[in-house]
Amino acid sequence: MSCLPSRERKAEKTMAYYKDMRDYIRALEKAGKLVRVKKRINKDTELHPLVRWQFRGLPEEQRKAFLFEDVVDVKGKTYTIPVLIACHAASRQIYALGMKCKEDEIIEKWTQAQLKPVKPVMVPTGPVHDVIFTGEHLVQHGGLGMLPVPISTPGFDNAPYFTSACWVSKDPETGIRNVGVYRSMIKGPTRLGVSSSPPKDLWTHWEKCHDRKIPLQAAAVIGAPPNLGFTAVSHLPYGVDEYDVSGGISGEPLKLVKCQTVDIEVPANAEIVVEGVIPTDALEREAPFGEYTGYMGGEMMNPYMNVTAITFRKNPIYVAFLSQFPPSESSKLRQIAAEAVYYKHLRYDCGLPNIQEVAFHESSGAWQYCVIKMKKTHPAQPWKALYSAANLDNHIGKIIIIVDEDIDPRDPDSVNWALSFRMQPHRDTQITYGKIPALDHSAAPPDSPERRYPLPRGCSSMLIDATRKWGYPPVSLPRKEYMERAKKIWEDLGLPPLKPQVPWHGYSLGHWTKENEEEAELALKGEHYQTGEKLEKQRQKM
Amino acid sequence: MSCLPSRERKAEKTMAYYKDMRDYIRALEKAGKLVRVKKRINKDTELHPLVRWQFRGLPEEQRKAFLFEDVVDVKGKTYTIPVLIACHAASRQIYALGMKCKEDEIIEKWTQAQLKPVKPVMVPTGPVHDVIFTGEHLVQHGGLGMLPVPISTPGFDNAPYFTSACWVSKDPETGIRNVGVYRSMIKGPTRLGVSSSPPKDLWTHWEKCHDRKIPLQAAAVIGAPPNLGFTAVSHLPYGVDEYDVSGGISGEPLKLVKCQTVDIEVPANAEIVVEGVIPTDALEREAPFGEYTGYMGGEMMNPYMNVTAITFRKNPIYVAFLSQFPPSESSKLRQIAAEAVYYKHLRYDCGLPNIQEVAFHESSGAWQYCVIKMKKTHPAQPWKALYSAANLDNHIGKIIIIVDEDIDPRDPDSVNWALSFRMQPHRDTQITYGKIPALDHSAAPPDSPERRYPLPRGCSSMLIDATRKWGYPPVSLPRKEYMERAKKIWEDLGLPPLKPQVPWHGYSLGHWTKENEEEAELALKGEHYQTGEKLEKQRQKM
Repeated sequence: MSCLPSRERKAEKTMAYYKDMRDYIRALEKAGKLVRVKKRINKDTELHPLVRWQFRGLPEEQRKAFLFEDVVDVKGKTYTIPVLIACHAASRQIYALGMKCKEDEIIEKWTQAQLKPVKPVMVPTGPVHDVIFTGEHLVQHGGLGMLPVPISTPGFDNAPYFTSACWVSKDPETGIRNVGVYRSMIKGPTRLGVSSSPPKDLWTHWEKCHDRKIPLQAAAVIGAPPNLGFTAVSHLPYGVDEYDVSGGISGEPLKLVKCQTVDIEVPANAEIVVEGVIPTDALEREAPFGEYTGYMGGEMMNPYMNVTAITFRKNPIYVAFLSQFPPSESSKLRQIAAEAVYYKHLRYDCGLPNIQEVAFHESSGAWQYCVIKMKKTHPAQPWKALYSAANLDNHIGKIIIIVDEDIDPRDPDSVNWALSFRMQPHRDTQITYGKIPALDHSAAPPDSPERRYPLPRGCSSMLIDATRKWGYPPVSLPRKEYMERAKKIWEDLGLPPLKPQVPWHGYSLGHWTKENEEEAELALKGEHYQTGEKLEKQRQKM
Repeated sequence: MSCLPSRERKAEKTMAYYKDMRDYIRALEKAGKLVRVKKRINKDTELHPLVRWQFRGLPEEQRKAFLFEDVVDVKGKTYTIPVLIACHAASRQIYALGMKCKEDEIIEKWTQAQLKPVKPVMVPTGPVHDVIFTGEHLVQHGGLGMLPVPISTPGFDNAPYFTSACWVSKDPETGIRNVGVYRSMIKGPTRLGVSSSPPKDLWTHWEKCHDRKIPLQAAAVIGAPPNLGFTAVSHLPYGVDEYDVSGGISGEPLKLVKCQTVDIEVPANAEIVVEGVIPTDALEREAPFGEYTGYMGGEMMNPYMNVTAITFRKNPIYVAFLSQFPPSESSKLRQIAAEAVYYKHLRYDCGLPNIQEVAFHESSGAWQYCVIKMKKTHPAQPWKALYSAANLDNHIGKIIIIVDEDIDPRDPDSVNWALSFRMQPHRDTQITYGKIPALDHSAAPPDSPERRYPLPRGCSSMLIDATRKWGYPPVSLPRKEYMERAKKIWEDLGLPPLKPQVPWHGYSLGHWTKENEEEAELALKGEHYQTGEKLEKQRQKM
């Protein structure tokens, strides 16, 4: 029993991480970040388009999670299971809520979770096994048809797909687990596609099983506590167990139970788990499916799973990610996870403690346009950072730019200012090879038989050192005190309210002489004719 | 006498261009685009910082021109001459007002003005000669000290400078006139610096006079009708008379008078003209001065003018540009002029009628980051446009990007989306040489003796073809009808008002098969298991 006074015990309790999705939904609602929709909504034609609007028509801070309580499909079938969408990452604020931290603490918390992961614990049973469907029972109840899986991109997608399913599988050689989010096409009542191609982790497991002539066991987890969604979308190195890093985020071990029909562990408090076996002697086509690149992903030959069990909590909640055209929930998830992984890698694995921020732009699907802010102490450091970032993951980083500490790496205008006046293309850029196109249609025509090399097929990176190479004269804005004084006058005159943008005053950048200072002071005394007289004496005859 | 009915005569009269700055001030005021400041304002420490705030803290559409009616300097001297600033281009709307057209007509009007220039006419006299100061009379009245010239970047600038002065000079060989805006340091009561270096037009005149051992006559015009400011900041080709293109904009000839002391013609309705003679046997240092690059421009050896006359209208108005850190009035002026000159060049001089838009980003000082929208009909066209744009003016275009017609070239996120998924660095980029650093501190250290070549000094361009190279699958957003339906539901639910952003629905990009269509339709009928069964039959054994 705790010996803390009751108030502190309460504080202690508040600090604990969300034990399940329901706990988190209460937090979303309390923070005013949940829209409950009681009106009947068609999951196939209305649900995604409705939530999509907030990504095409609202500023980020106004975006919310949506809970649809009365869902119907195109055939008129009603569902008792509600659909929760955009609850992980409709905005950076919502992501912070899911992390139980402030927005500006997200990356540090994520970094510490990688450095200090917490292993999960096994428990004998959990709510995810409240309701169990297997064998004939599963088929009689419609199998996957029980779940209100929405169509993400109506008019183009060829089926409903799981978008938030965290796939758990194991390396048959080492037994090391992987948890990853892969789109999953509903192909039949007990058959699911799973989009995983080389060199993704589930594919590696698949290949190793294929070599051993055994099938791959797997489970797709839907609606775990949000810390699992955060890590499952990330590209952590092969061999890192996402359950451990999720534990690092919450600061406590994830509770796991054994699956009913496969040798896989899943979160005890998840809403829904689909268990099954992935044959490794055949592949099946899946897609087209609307992808994070902003285009439909084309048809691919991919693994598929024969479903052996579906297990539920009582009154389960189906959870989806709003993905596709960026910005979206999925680009925000991908963005923050990539920022955390790259920040940790550059600072801690590559010995670049002066890395200050990594910003993946959502306009690039949050993977292809990366800006790294660095307080450079040696001219070689930007290149170390550029090559390290380019090499970490060959799916990520078509354009990588290093900027100084006074540039806002998230503001495209600020970055374009740096590109315009802090770099020279012939001197400060380099192109490197070895990227994998994945879903990038610019690599080769969509129907090309060989999309992935040899060159000129395939993908490359543009690396740009947009840091200042030497001292610059000051930023051409009035000195701070004059801008401050003017702001008071602005307000006295009753002019419209200001939202000051950085930089809003001039500052030194290393190149400013005593004489420059003196002349500026003379000008401010109205004595600039003195400077004029000096310059006349220094006149240069031609 | 006109035989039109009176109502039509009135309409005819309304269509005429602003005859002077005062006429234009009335239009600004009527449009709610002028702030009159009656409060006493220090021109050296308060005026620029105050107006600067609207460029660091307000959205563009809220920015206005400012008229300061009670101006004082740091020594406490009061001025009867008011200061008008940001009246040409505080925003694109204000620029359109100055052009007497709608915002989306600006570029076409500017283009037509280049194609159909209107020569000015000489008139015997004009208001600009209401008051004339020459010789001893000029000196006794304080010369340039009569004018309330503000300090632009207090704390860093070494004097007050003219920022909006249109310098008029002539090629001594051909007699062809040039009008250009050059910053002009107040060096003494009758001495002005003029910042013009090779290969700028005034510098070319200076060199030719130097070769002939004669001085260069010139006049600095302040407060002409706004069409002169628009053309004087542009980089029209050498030999094009900006007065003619200004006439093309207004659709009527500019009225000119001869200067009092030099063989130069100036607008009869200008507010203020400073006449003088530029020695060509010596140069003088001028600057530091806050520049459009976002940094202080360093010291340069430049021509200077000995003032021979100052002429005024009665109750003259001093006009300044708000320049320096972008965005600013000067970056907007530079942006639109460059867009018009490049658009005309690419479409009409280079035979690329499928150029749809040229967008210079203000974050680059409106010269260095250029995005060109093109409806490509042959794969070679983007490169023709890229090389043509890179070659037109060697001060302009560090980064030049060609995008397709569905990209918004002004939206950096839209451009970054194109860079992320429509180009490969190793295939679609090229670096070209031959740029002139001018004020770009990235070319060489500020105190380097040779800033302009040989390589690796000097500046280069990065050219990028970010157009699709082949058909792509559709944009991954729900089809239009589903987004429209969802918008109605959104509104029915009383959710916050939307500002729809392009693209807000999926559309075809050339690669989408009959089978893709059929599968998408089946999914929308809830018949996706049929697709699943088909895919099972097409299974590929490994």
